[in-house]
Amino acid sequence: MKNSKKTNAGLNRRDFLKFGALTGMFAGASGVASACATPASNGNFAGRAKYIIFMVSDGMSHGTLQMADLMSRRLHGRPSKWIELYEQRAVTRGLMDMTTGNASVPDSAAASSSWGCGHRITNGNVNMDDNENPFEPIIPIFGRHGRKTGLVTTTEITHATPAGFTANVQRRHMQDDIAAQYLEREVDVMLGGGRRHFDPDVREDGQDLYAGFRDKGYKVALTKAELGQPNGFGRVLGTFTERHLPYSRDHENTEELVLDVPTLAEMSKYAIDTLYASGDGFILQIEGGRVDHAAHSMDATGLVYDQIAFDDAIRVAWDFYLQHPDETLIVMTTDHGNANPSLNAAGSGYNDSDPFFNRLQEFTYTNNWIMRGLNEDSSVADIVARVGTATGLDFERDHARMLQQALRGEFQAAYAMKARPMNVLGGLMSNYTAVSFTGSVHTADYVELAAAGPGSETLGPITRNTDWFGLMLTAAGIEIPEMRQS
Amino acid sequence: MKNSKKTNAGLNRRDFLKFGALTGMFAGASGVASACATPASNGNFAGRAKYIIFMVSDGMSHGTLQMADLMSRRLHGRPSKWIELYEQRAVTRGLMDMTTGNASVPDSAAASSSWGCGHRITNGNVNMDDNENPFEPIIPIFGRHGRKTGLVTTTEITHATPAGFTANVQRRHMQDDIAAQYLEREVDVMLGGGRRHFDPDVREDGQDLYAGFRDKGYKVALTKAELGQPNGFGRVLGTFTERHLPYSRDHENTEELVLDVPTLAEMSKYAIDTLYASGDGFILQIEGGRVDHAAHSMDATGLVYDQIAFDDAIRVAWDFYLQHPDETLIVMTTDHGNANPSLNAAGSGYNDSDPFFNRLQEFTYTNNWIMRGLNEDSSVADIVARVGTATGLDFERDHARMLQQALRGEFQAAYAMKARPMNVLGGLMSNYTAVSFTGSVHTADYVELAAAGPGSETLGPITRNTDWFGLMLTAAGIEIPEMRQS
Ligand SMILES: [Zn+2]
Ligand SMILES: [Zn+2]
Repeated sequence: MKNSKKTNAGLNRRDFLKFGALTGMFAGASGVASACATPASNGNFAGRAKYIIFMVSDGMSHGTLQMADLMSRRLHGRPSKWIELYEQRAVTRGLMDMTTGNASVPDSAAASSSWGCGHRITNGNVNMDDNENPFEPIIPIFGRHGRKTGLVTTTEITHATPAGFTANVQRRHMQDDIAAQYLEREVDVMLGGGRRHFDPDVREDGQDLYAGFRDKGYKVALTKAELGQPNGFGRVLGTFTERHLPYSRDHENTEELVLDVPTLAEMSKYAIDTLYASGDGFILQIEGGRVDHAAHSMDATGLVYDQIAFDDAIRVAWDFYLQHPDETLIVMTTDHGNANPSLNAAGSGYNDSDPFFNRLQEFTYTNNWIMRGLNEDSSVADIVARVGTATGLDFERDHARMLQQALRGEFQAAYAMKARPMNVLGGLMSNYTAVSFTGSVHTADYVELAAAGPGSETLGPITRNTDWFGLMLTAAGIEIPEMRQS
Repeated sequence: MKNSKKTNAGLNRRDFLKFGALTGMFAGASGVASACATPASNGNFAGRAKYIIFMVSDGMSHGTLQMADLMSRRLHGRPSKWIELYEQRAVTRGLMDMTTGNASVPDSAAASSSWGCGHRITNGNVNMDDNENPFEPIIPIFGRHGRKTGLVTTTEITHATPAGFTANVQRRHMQDDIAAQYLEREVDVMLGGGRRHFDPDVREDGQDLYAGFRDKGYKVALTKAELGQPNGFGRVLGTFTERHLPYSRDHENTEELVLDVPTLAEMSKYAIDTLYASGDGFILQIEGGRVDHAAHSMDATGLVYDQIAFDDAIRVAWDFYLQHPDETLIVMTTDHGNANPSLNAAGSGYNDSDPFFNRLQEFTYTNNWIMRGLNEDSSVADIVARVGTATGLDFERDHARMLQQALRGEFQAAYAMKARPMNVLGGLMSNYTAVSFTGSVHTADYVELAAAGPGSETLGPITRNTDWFGLMLTAAGIEIPEMRQS
């Protein structure tokens, strides 16, 4: 690790301010009119945030937020928590520009790194410039200052978004290295998937990271039962699946998964209670990581229910915020749009969008689940049956035939990426649900951001991703470290 | 017209407040934290807005706003005005829930009516409930109170969005009736397209509405030259094309259109100068109406350049606002999303979104222009040539072949609406531009909203479409009229 040396060279605090990031954020009202009767405060929040909870619904486009709200109203007769906080004017909100070092469309590694180290770096890098120079990320900085640290996600715990707060690797796929850095940097609470990066039987270097964590006094949990209930402060590594955790809709309808794998809300509660019990203050990143994967698969079932699971985690975090409003900075956002899903007009006279959308309530498994049971040898009848099992739909044979063509590599789509079998299924389902997608990749949209607590009062209508590094440190009363001149 | 009788029966102001719309909007900070250090003011803006400018980019999804900003930076080295106002904290912003009386996905008639009369009505209706009961819309109310009124749009002037502030008809397609109501209700300034609804040779009833307007002292202009320059206050009807005005990109690259048809910014300047000269105060709706049509056609060229044309109109309106900030309420929003376009990741490593997007700078004509030169008899060579003329692209023959299939009704798409020839072209172009669409219809997204001036300080993170009726009247110092019990 050359991290510690390099990150302390060169760039001082004044240089950092010259980046224009913090200055933009803390400037207060510079225009003619302002959202607020009084100008934004200038740094009087410094040191007031003993607790920071940074929540990321990965790859959440605006339509994802809207559809989860609509589904929440349909299922539970209440808005999503996120939208309810808007209705109550309980949070500040704005857009955020997630541009990375080399593209308008971010990947999760560069996106999370922009928050985690305050720099716009190349897509795919994790807190490193292109010449292998690291930028020290926020979780080890908090750790050095005696604060507790945590990562919670539905993806592999070593995935790009948690890594962006924690690790330094040249490319995001170096997840074995990321796991080793988690051990070295002693993140206090880690809950998610990704056993394969800790298990000596699977890791390329054969190292037993689980043993390493146990040696350092961590509880290592492989199931929900092993995790148990929080009981004061204690370090913990919970990895509940080999790779990512299941999609929420598959999770809740699969008995052994319900038994073995905690939900995002359950992991969030565990992490908050554990970190809080230390008395030292904390920073915790919570990621709903598979919202992104569902969008990559044009999978509306995966998308909507995982966003609702994320919303349930917001409820947990908000409960904590309400108990410590003067000391908690809470942020809800996403790292980029993905496939910009929409609930579309449908039927005659634009009047059937809602009945189409309501069908999602009957779907018990995701498109991803459907595809796991199909291959190029699947018959039209197989496909109709499999879709029927997952959704209760009477899937048209013409539709099944198109999916069969796709499975055999014979389907032609105008936009090439939409010829992939998973995406053909996604497109076909749009005929039934009125939910559709622009493609199956990230998008350049300005993203949604909501925040409350110390520091949030400084936010304007649009903020820059890199602003958050300095804002979180300042809010926590930690001096912005000197950084390498870029 | 039974309007005047019915709208004054029954519902009094207290009933109106019970709707929960105004109460929600004027409530101030009810949550734990707030965007503002002081609670929102409660109605102290009443009567302060002598001028109201309500700007609608019809069918503008979040990605549309973002791509126009990106293109503006590329073309002119500056952000879009809309985003610049965010960066300067010069406006309040939030989301708006555009749900209509019968659907989560609005059409423009019910959407504009929700602002125009304060009711959520059925899609396709214009300020009417389903039993032919009218709600008096805001423009005639302002007219009755001695204020000047104006409509500016790039669509037919009788289209749903301007009509939603002005007319009462059961269904939006009754545009001949809408034109007659404009005459009866004496809207002061009308600039847009739609000659066919005024011209006795084309109107179904053979009425000469142009003569009617001239009899009432209006200047009637059919070309930019006939419109001339504003010269004090004077009533004017300008209809510059039979139907809609051209898309901006086709407009600026077609000599006779440049000569005969004013831009949205030019019409906006004319309307503002003329209405202001009266000294009476005014309400003006400005619509970028073809952003919606471009999204319906999955036409990125149409979309991005029409959004930029709308942004140019914002510059004009903002200049006026800056001269009268204490007396001007300015609103920028949209009536619904449409096809939720996105700039997508492209190329290897997610790094080529920008070079793909930059190709749009070389495109001189829209997809709509391309399609006007093609039909089911077009050869592959014809298609390659036509696309080449419009875009400079070396269009792949395989792509031309798919478009040819679509033109002949032989193309199969997973999501049925994407098999339309126009949409197949849209999908094919995504391979070159990295811009794509979820479909070709309206979406249920919460929409973007920005505002400044008297009343804007009351806005929370999310508002309801129907709130605007009462807010605009209150801001203008006009009592909310008693309304029919619904
Ligand atoms: Zn992703
Ligand atoms: Zn439309």
